[in-house]
Amino acid sequence: MVMTQVTVWNEFRHERKNPVVTAIYPQGMHAVLATALREQGFTVRTATLDEPEHGLSEAVLSQTEVLVWWGHLAHHEVADAVVERVKARVLAGMGLIVLHSGHFSKLFKALMGTSCDLKWREAGEIERLWVIEPAHPIAEGLPELIEIAQEEMYGERFDIPAPETLVLASWFAGGELFRSGCCYTRGQGKIFYFRPGHETYPTYHLPLVQRVIANAVRWAAPGQGPVPTFGHRPEPLSPLRAL
Amino acid sequence: MVMTQVTVWNEFRHERKNPVVTAIYPQGMHAVLATALREQGFTVRTATLDEPEHGLSEAVLSQTEVLVWWGHLAHHEVADAVVERVKARVLAGMGLIVLHSGHFSKLFKALMGTSCDLKWREAGEIERLWVIEPAHPIAEGLPELIEIAQEEMYGERFDIPAPETLVLASWFAGGELFRSGCCYTRGQGKIFYFRPGHETYPTYHLPLVQRVIANAVRWAAPGQGPVPTFGHRPEPLSPLRAL
Amino acid sequence: MVMTQVTVWNEFRHERKNPVVTAIYPQGMHAVLATALREQGFTVRTATLDEPEHGLSEAVLSQTEVLVWWGHLAHHEVADAVVERVKARVLAGMGLIVLHSGHFSKLFKALMGTSCDLKWREAGEIERLWVIEPAHPIAEGLPELIEIAQEEMYGERFDIPAPETLVLASWFAGGELFRSGCCYTRGQGKIFYFRPGHETYPTYHLPLVQRVIANAVRWAAPGQGPVPTFGHRPEPLSPLRAL
Amino acid sequence: MVMTQVTVWNEFRHERKNPVVTAIYPQGMHAVLATALREQGFTVRTATLDEPEHGLSEAVLSQTEVLVWWGHLAHHEVADAVVERVKARVLAGMGLIVLHSGHFSKLFKALMGTSCDLKWREAGEIERLWVIEPAHPIAEGLPELIEIAQEEMYGERFDIPAPETLVLASWFAGGELFRSGCCYTRGQGKIFYFRPGHETYPTYHLPLVQRVIANAVRWAAPGQGPVPTFGHRPEPLSPLRAL
Repeated sequence: MVMTQVTVWNEFRHERKNPVVTAIYPQGMHAVLATALREQGFTVRTATLDEPEHGLSEAVLSQTEVLVWWGHLAHHEVADAVVERVKARVLAGMGLIVLHSGHFSKLFKALMGTSCDLKWREAGEIERLWVIEPAHPIAEGLPELIEIAQEEMYGERFDIPAPETLVLASWFAGGELFRSGCCYTRGQGKIFYFRPGHETYPTYHLPLVQRVIANAVRWAAPGQGPVPTFGHRPEPLSPLRAL
Repeated sequence: MVMTQVTVWNEFRHERKNPVVTAIYPQGMHAVLATALREQGFTVRTATLDEPEHGLSEAVLSQTEVLVWWGHLAHHEVADAVVERVKARVLAGMGLIVLHSGHFSKLFKALMGTSCDLKWREAGEIERLWVIEPAHPIAEGLPELIEIAQEEMYGERFDIPAPETLVLASWFAGGELFRSGCCYTRGQGKIFYFRPGHETYPTYHLPLVQRVIANAVRWAAPGQGPVPTFGHRPEPLSPLRAL
Repeated sequence: MVMTQVTVWNEFRHERKNPVVTAIYPQGMHAVLATALREQGFTVRTATLDEPEHGLSEAVLSQTEVLVWWGHLAHHEVADAVVERVKARVLAGMGLIVLHSGHFSKLFKALMGTSCDLKWREAGEIERLWVIEPAHPIAEGLPELIEIAQEEMYGERFDIPAPETLVLASWFAGGELFRSGCCYTRGQGKIFYFRPGHETYPTYHLPLVQRVIANAVRWAAPGQGPVPTFGHRPEPLSPLRAL
Repeated sequence: MVMTQVTVWNEFRHERKNPVVTAIYPQGMHAVLATALREQGFTVRTATLDEPEHGLSEAVLSQTEVLVWWGHLAHHEVADAVVERVKARVLAGMGLIVLHSGHFSKLFKALMGTSCDLKWREAGEIERLWVIEPAHPIAEGLPELIEIAQEEMYGERFDIPAPETLVLASWFAGGELFRSGCCYTRGQGKIFYFRPGHETYPTYHLPLVQRVIANAVRWAAPGQGPVPTFGHRPEPLSPLRAL
């Protein structure tokens, strides 16, 4: 059994300039996520914004089956050519897990077709993620409620297309709620948006959060379905005749 | 790795009274389907209408992870108590694959909430099944088109709730089309309706048809998601106070 | 322009035996809802459990374009024959608005195919309904947030099929959330489940709650789409020939 | 009652250079569609590719409630700035009806996030459009089957996100089928893709095709739902406290 090849992409800026974040993720969030995914049996590499081509060369992408994406401060610094390249790979079947503030990445917006805007507040308030669809593979091994003691709030209206499956939804102490675990198919690719993960809280150290991400990677891994063919079909399959 | 336990249920009447059908399925359709699923690595038993409790005792169901259902002539002979028992098991997580004329079974109608009616014609016409969602697990290993040389026609309007995923759709030579591969979630259970399989054609001997059914069994197998709890929650999770 | 004909059905038991409820709804909830709908221009009649045939004779139903349903204590007292009659009318195109504890009615469960179970708590806590799909007709004229000062809590997992459109979702002070405004199509009929309306609070006196219900009635009113035909189609539309 | 303001946009190239098309649409397809929509009571203007700003200035768009789009040869000539402007208007609530070869427009691809590719054949073969969802407003007044004597074939896999509602699907004599009437919501805007309309056939003169387009315009017209607000919400709605 060949293991799914995962690339964890991280903007990796907060960790290098904000001591609060450095203390939580000294090697960067990508390092924590990569370790967690390796423990689940995936083959994992990492890539970051400030590497050449943001670490997402054709060579890297051609060996990536599922890409995990965290970005926030520097969405506009991601080169359009790389966004197009990654999007093309998703449409060709690569899975994509978009985390937290990645909702505003060029990549996610291009795949959704909408603004992906939302409400937000940084007040360290409690987040409760309720499982809406317990039979979905991404709910595997979860309790019906995941509590995170302190998180940034994201609130509806979340300007996305209605998800194909809404796996998780979040309650925030301050009065808002949010569609927190959203599945999409785009082309041959499966996409999962997962809300938690503000940089100033140790969210990605939490085992249940890691479990959701690992489940999502498993779900989004490309299969062996037919590669659709497109274009001119001059010959009908059945004979044509007059009405 | 424990293998998924499958029960193939068949009405098993046509095969015993119509020589045309007997010639195609001497041991019954269930025997052909069971063999095909065993070859895919599943643990398979069979059950038929004329067994006590239609072969679907509590004991059998408790050991069944996915149930495959073929019925036609005798939907009304299936005892309501058995229908309720099977439905309860589906809602508790057992997968269900409903084949062909099973669209009109008490079981499927109870799970859909609609009449499940359709148009039909027995004219041995060609059926072409096109893959609509190639990234879905049920499309695994399929070509983008499955051709069946002779089948009964089923035509829209098919009176079902819109499927959560439409994996396959059928074209018929006589002018109709049909949603042929339809996914649903009901409670903890996953349901797949698959159209082909009229008793007078050797449809279930076709490798690609067997492949769809095997894929569906794999997709519908119960997972380890949270078992939701229901009922009274006298204590709030967060302290309540006045507005 | 002919006005949509609405029947508001109410169990009408709480109001007659609990003085708290009587004080809020002296003529019954149905009276308050009927008045609100008449003010929106609908032609409204009411029906209650203890009338002959529960007030839902064939004659009444044949003149009902949208049925509003509130029940709680006495779901089991609703005659199966009436449930079947109403369900058949929904499948034939009558709109259905199921309110609050109607989630557990025989009717709603038969149309959904699931248990429709949930968590609940009567603690008079604040409910905030957020608009998830602002472009949906049921969101017409609403603010993006509706606050209800005191309501019963309903919490996920709500054991329903994933709604075709999730228009509203509720946040509760005690820590739960809920899919509160859910659209379905069953047969020719449109169904809207709307959560608020515990009998001990004056919820149906609230203008915004009335507005949601009026919008839902407008959305669920039957149209002039084709009545599908079913059954045997011996003649193909296109000539058949050999492969 | 204010009438919905519609702009019919047409590439308007085929009609000016191919005598076959000129004979069918001497004033352009937009003229035929505009007349048909005016007869249904809409206020209609037209716009074409070779006008300044393609006829889609801010002023025109600000007065457009629903935009109808036909393009084919010259998708690449549509200025990116105009595409962005129109897309922004759709996300802000303007309805959009994309016709036939408009599936490959920059605009539709940007709103879908996918390639929108498909199979095609120009063989003048019969197209049969079956109504899949008869209760949908776009099916209003239609028969359950619309037959078009000669059309271009479009075949699946159609590389789009699964539609929120599949209203119509097409059967083609040559063996293919297609999701022909697809509803989406993007931001505040409603989008309907409608397949028929190859330029060398008189499709847009057909009353039933005109009826579908008029129904779609009615369905896609913007409502009065809440305009969502986004961004920073420093103040919680409910008081926060420690766990």
